[in-house]
Amino acid sequence: MDKLLVAKIGGSIIDEERALKEVLETFAAIPQRKALVHGGGRRADHVLERMGIEPRMVGGRRITDAPTMDVVQMVYAGLVNKNIVALLQSMDCPALGLSGADLDCLRAVKRPKGEVDFGFVGDIRLVNARVLKQVLDAGWTPVFCPLTHDGRGQMLNTNADTIAAEIAIALGRFFSVELVYCSGNMGVLADPADEQSVLPTIGIEEYHSLKERGIISAGMIPKLDTAFRALRNGVQEVRIGGSVALHADNKATRIRLSNTEEKK
Amino acid sequence: MDKLLVAKIGGSIIDEERALKEVLETFAAIPQRKALVHGGGRRADHVLERMGIEPRMVGGRRITDAPTMDVVQMVYAGLVNKNIVALLQSMDCPALGLSGADLDCLRAVKRPKGEVDFGFVGDIRLVNARVLKQVLDAGWTPVFCPLTHDGRGQMLNTNADTIAAEIAIALGRFFSVELVYCSGNMGVLADPADEQSVLPTIGIEEYHSLKERGIISAGMIPKLDTAFRALRNGVQEVRIGGSVALHADNKATRIRLSNTEEKK
Repeated sequence: MDKLLVAKIGGSIIDEERALKEVLETFAAIPQRKALVHGGGRRADHVLERMGIEPRMVGGRRITDAPTMDVVQMVYAGLVNKNIVALLQSMDCPALGLSGADLDCLRAVKRPKGEVDFGFVGDIRLVNARVLKQVLDAGWTPVFCPLTHDGRGQMLNTNADTIAAEIAIALGRFFSVELVYCSGNMGVLADPADEQSVLPTIGIEEYHSLKERGIISAGMIPKLDTAFRALRNGVQEVRIGGSVALHADNKATRIRLSNTEEKK
Repeated sequence: MDKLLVAKIGGSIIDEERALKEVLETFAAIPQRKALVHGGGRRADHVLERMGIEPRMVGGRRITDAPTMDVVQMVYAGLVNKNIVALLQSMDCPALGLSGADLDCLRAVKRPKGEVDFGFVGDIRLVNARVLKQVLDAGWTPVFCPLTHDGRGQMLNTNADTIAAEIAIALGRFFSVELVYCSGNMGVLADPADEQSVLPTIGIEEYHSLKERGIISAGMIPKLDTAFRALRNGVQEVRIGGSVALHADNKATRIRLSNTEEKK
C-alpha cells in the first residue's frame, strides 16, 4: 500500500507568518502523497472583533450563529486557505484548496441542539474517499479548511482535528496513513509547566492516568481522543507535536494503543 | 470537439439569494461540460464598510491595498465561492471551487504602478488549460472566484469578466467554447433608458458606432472589448444577458465579429 501523510496544522502556526512558511516548506518537501488540514488560528476572532461580532465559546468550541458562520467561512476558506495554497504553489507543491462542499468531499449534519446550541456546526457523516483518492492520484495535494456542508446548500463549521482524523480513517482503505497534528506545542507533556517534558509515546492507559491526574487537560483531551479513534480505525501512525513532527524521526509524541489493543 | 459552456455570473445575481439560486438551478441543469466564474457583487463593499475600510474605485475598478486584498479574498474565495459550491452540490452538480492559486490554474502579475496604483490587482499571464481539462474530464464543474496568484505566494484580485474570457480562450484548444456573461442586465441595449431594447446581436462596427454615440458606456465597454477579444481568439460564441442567456435560444445579445473578420 502506498503511504499517505495527513498533516493538520493549527494554533500559533497559522497566526505567525514565518512559522507558517516554515512548516509549509517542510510539508512541501515531503515526497510521498500528502494532504493538509488547517485550522483558523486567531484570525477569525480578529475579523469578528473588527466587525463588532462577539466571539462565543463553550468548552473550547465556537458557537457559530449565522453572522459568525459568514465570518469563519470567509476566514477559513478565503483568507487562510488561499494564503496556504498560494504559498504551497510557490514551493512547487500542486495544492488544491478544498472545503467539504467542494467535490462533496465532506458531508455533515448540523449538530442538534442539546444543552448548548452550537449553531452552524457540522458533525461529519460522509467522507468521499473515492473523490479524494482521485485528487491524490492526479498528483495534487488537497488542502482542507475546517468547513463541511450539509448537502442542502448550507456550509457548516467543523473542527479541524476531527476533519483530519476522519479523512485519515476514510483513506485508510487505499493508503497506509500517517496522521500528524502540528501546532505550537511540541507534543504531549508529562509536566504541563515544562515544555521540554514531551512524552516520546503515550498509550491509552497512560493517557487515562494523566487525564485523571489533571496533567492532560483542555484541548489536548479531544485531540487525543480523536487520535486514539484514528488508530482504532485503521490509521497506521499518529503523532502530535510541533512542525518537526512532520518527520517521523523527530521529537514529538507518538500515540499508540495499549499492547492488549494492538494485538486485537 | 466537445462543447464547453463558460458562464460568468455577476452583479445583482450574486447579491440576491433568490436570483442566485435560480441562475444556479439553470446552470446545474445544463448537461454539457461547464465552468462557472463569479464576481463578488456588493458583498465585498459591505464587509469593507463593516470593518471600517473605505472602498476606493478608479474607472469602475477597485484599488486593492493590503487590507482590501484580505477582504476581497475572504469574500470572493470564502463567502461567495463556497455558498455557490454548496448550492450547486445541493443541485447534484459536482462543483469544485477554485481560485487561481488552486492547481496553479491562473497565474498573474501584479499590475505595475502607472498613473494609478491599483495595488494587489493581477493581470493574467497563464491559464493552466491542461489542468482545467483534467478537472472537466473528471466530470467536475470548476467554479472560479475572481482571484489569481503570482506564483510567489501572493494572491491577486482579477476582474471576473477577464477571467471568464481567458479561460474560454485557453480551453478553446480542447473544446468548442460558448462564453456567456449573465448579470442583472438583459443584454446590450439599443436605448439605455429602455430595458426592452435588447439587441439580438451586435457586431464590431455597430459596437464602435454605439460607443461613439454614448449609448454603450461604463462597464459594458470593457465587457464587450473582452467579448470581441474572445471571439478573435477561437471562442465559438459569446452572449451577454440575464440568467436566461445561459440558454442559446433565449433573449440575450449575441456578440459577433463583423463579416469581414468572420471570414479570416
